[in-house]
Amino acid sequence: MKINVPRKYVIDNLKYALNPASIAVVGASRYDGKVGYKVIEGLNKWGYKGTIYPVNPRAEKVHGLKAYKTITEIPGPVDLVFVAVPAHLVKMILEHAVTKKAKIAVIATSAFKEIGRGVLQDELTQYCRDNKLPLIGPNLVGMGSPYLNFNCGFIPYLPVEGPVAMISQSGANLLAALGTSQMLNFGMSFFVGLGNKADVDFSEFIAYGAEDKNTHCISTYIEGLDCPEAFMQACQSVVPKKPVVAIKVGGSQIGVKAAFAHTASENEGTNDAHYDEIFEKAGVIRATTWQEFLDVSLALGLQPPLKSDNVVMITNGGGSGLLSCDHFERMNMPMRELKDISPQLVDRIRAYMPMFGSPLNPVDISGTASPKNYKGAITQAVRDPKVDAIYGSICPTSVTDVSAVTNIYIDIYDTYKYLGKPFIMEAQGGEECNEAIMKLRKHGIPAYPTPEQAVNAIVALRKYGKIKEKFNK
Amino acid sequence: MKINVPRKYVIDNLKYALNPASIAVVGASRYDGKVGYKVIEGLNKWGYKGTIYPVNPRAEKVHGLKAYKTITEIPGPVDLVFVAVPAHLVKMILEHAVTKKAKIAVIATSAFKEIGRGVLQDELTQYCRDNKLPLIGPNLVGMGSPYLNFNCGFIPYLPVEGPVAMISQSGANLLAALGTSQMLNFGMSFFVGLGNKADVDFSEFIAYGAEDKNTHCISTYIEGLDCPEAFMQACQSVVPKKPVVAIKVGGSQIGVKAAFAHTASENEGTNDAHYDEIFEKAGVIRATTWQEFLDVSLALGLQPPLKSDNVVMITNGGGSGLLSCDHFERMNMPMRELKDISPQLVDRIRAYMPMFGSPLNPVDISGTASPKNYKGAITQAVRDPKVDAIYGSICPTSVTDVSAVTNIYIDIYDTYKYLGKPFIMEAQGGEECNEAIMKLRKHGIPAYPTPEQAVNAIVALRKYGKIKEKFNK
Repeated sequence: MKINVPRKYVIDNLKYALNPASIAVVGASRYDGKVGYKVIEGLNKWGYKGTIYPVNPRAEKVHGLKAYKTITEIPGPVDLVFVAVPAHLVKMILEHAVTKKAKIAVIATSAFKEIGRGVLQDELTQYCRDNKLPLIGPNLVGMGSPYLNFNCGFIPYLPVEGPVAMISQSGANLLAALGTSQMLNFGMSFFVGLGNKADVDFSEFIAYGAEDKNTHCISTYIEGLDCPEAFMQACQSVVPKKPVVAIKVGGSQIGVKAAFAHTASENEGTNDAHYDEIFEKAGVIRATTWQEFLDVSLALGLQPPLKSDNVVMITNGGGSGLLSCDHFERMNMPMRELKDISPQLVDRIRAYMPMFGSPLNPVDISGTASPKNYKGAITQAVRDPKVDAIYGSICPTSVTDVSAVTNIYIDIYDTYKYLGKPFIMEAQGGEECNEAIMKLRKHGIPAYPTPEQAVNAIVALRKYGKIKEKFNK
Repeated sequence: MKINVPRKYVIDNLKYALNPASIAVVGASRYDGKVGYKVIEGLNKWGYKGTIYPVNPRAEKVHGLKAYKTITEIPGPVDLVFVAVPAHLVKMILEHAVTKKAKIAVIATSAFKEIGRGVLQDELTQYCRDNKLPLIGPNLVGMGSPYLNFNCGFIPYLPVEGPVAMISQSGANLLAALGTSQMLNFGMSFFVGLGNKADVDFSEFIAYGAEDKNTHCISTYIEGLDCPEAFMQACQSVVPKKPVVAIKVGGSQIGVKAAFAHTASENEGTNDAHYDEIFEKAGVIRATTWQEFLDVSLALGLQPPLKSDNVVMITNGGGSGLLSCDHFERMNMPMRELKDISPQLVDRIRAYMPMFGSPLNPVDISGTASPKNYKGAITQAVRDPKVDAIYGSICPTSVTDVSAVTNIYIDIYDTYKYLGKPFIMEAQGGEECNEAIMKLRKHGIPAYPTPEQAVNAIVALRKYGKIKEKFNK
């Protein structure tokens, strides 16, 4: 339901969504496979240190914990009420939650507005608003944070620690991102599935992310914005400090219907250009594909914004250099020739490549490049005051020492980090490149397995540089 | 150097490039790190069964093998001459190769046309053409085939066996593809780096691939086409039987220069639209990014072409459904609603989903979907004569049995493969999804970690369906 501005009482209570001292799980189940079972299992498995109160009128114990017939019977205070009961019972549970003075309600239950029960959903929302009980969901998967060992929902993973706050309307895509996080060192600060977002909306979690000390990029997966004004307002006040990324789906003809069927998102009459405009006004960086969404989020979370187009690419693969410069141009940020960036640098870098290498930019130090060549070329580039970002690239020829080059890249990054120049890496190949990517990400360097992904990341850093300039005026 | 048609004597001799009974390695080295060392090491390591003759005027033995001062001193016949000596010595080596009646010359040596020595390169080419000795390279990384245990060049991997022939002008990108092959079950039939392609050109390897029984998709990485007529002619005669994929780089402003510096490719005066036209005439499917290049190649290699737009997507993730239908529309192949494809199927599929699922298409059988639900829904879809392709998708919710769903998908595929309907899968998430992808690929089903990649694959199968129709007329 519509809000015009992010509400203070909601933002203030969101800390109970991610860091509650106590949780009542209503619909707690003794049966594996049920949401009300999985949520307690997940809380325990990932190390939740607060108190869990199972609520189940037909059980004495659930997961070895004493079960209560209703929330109101629980002896201590309850911060978060997690609801996993059938739709027709939800209203009663919310009344109990209000009576109990719970701080936040989280509704996993589906079958509301997305199947035509909009009136019922609005009624619940209005009730919660009247009683100042923020409601997250319904039709949601859960939330959590690796920094708080908190995994609340039916969620098989916790992500690895890192800079990206992921606010997603889709549960499944959120889970996909969490899986990717573990597998590919995609670090997150916290995550939440908003589902139908009947009450708590993007804007309020964005405002929460602005204050969260572990969050350096706020990434949103959007199926529909019910409250674009609140969204824009929240973003405009965040983006001078932290970047916001959005992927917006449901813009296609069939997508309009699918988005409604999924999370009751209303896209009828809007289109992609409409959202482009909202994001432009809001200072939000829009991603098109899921891969791009993850890739640019990671870069924006790990690296400072890019201040100019003076990116120097240093590669041992002419092919990945070409894929990169074509893609830069496709993304409207053409590479500049090294001689135009810094004529002196051309000669300095030439000392670190064979005669058949090319100091054009991409700087092709050739397939025979040694770790020493990499070190020399990259050090020269980062030291040059005209250069504003380093884009390293490595292809595994049979004479390439991927691991040594990776370590050198990390060393140089650590040495010159104080200059505030973004470092990005591309390692295109097999297992040793995958290991390099994992290691680089762990050390705070966004690294990718294809040139186009790395380029998208750099383009996003440039976009954020421009957004900061604009919104800090 | 220009050719107008693929030459028969060249095509006939290409079998000696991939399956030679004997190889002379000129510039064979005793020192690790040298190309002339790596090539013999690679041949031995990957199980080459033919005879290797090291040629080195200053060594008695190389890699434990008797070394010869020149090719002409070698006692037995020589099929392939691999040249890894400095540029100024290459002419002499080629003269020896002609004297020895070698079948093919492969020149790894760099520093020819790409650094301005076009005259020297043309001279070598003309000499080889006058003597009917096909020359591959110079400035190339090598070639090989997993089916022949053959790895000839400075190449750290052999790919896994599979349907894609990879013909690449860039060595580094070829190596990247080979690394990906091992890590992600991207199967290849053979591979070759063409380098500067002074003599042997794309067209001739494409014609060779047409006859190779393990090849089901011919994929080309192109920095510049010197002989577009020969290329078009080769493709036009192949595409009624096998698909050809191309990625063309060097179209950007700086890319024109970089492509010349890399492989002496001349793109001045051409542009991307020019190549679009060539590929259109040739019946070639063009990929834009490296990831797309790999993804569509795999799908075209593993699956039959798609005959209509009647693709049914079955997913447990509304989010990946939305990403998919938006991307289909972006790629100009909008999804059709299930009720428009087959009204009966809507009811049949509804039996396998909860009430909050959606039979729209994407068919969202919901995050609670069991392996049984998947089995029922997919079986109903594949049996429906109106449905022409199955697009399965799985997101790991905490109740999803990814492994069981994967096995069911493979079983259904095996049962209904005879119908000639493409099966594609998307598994978006962590390690268990990666395992599913690996297993599906091994069983001949193109599987991908993001929805847009799977959609690109399906769109390519549709394109190839249309190309076959057009070129079989």
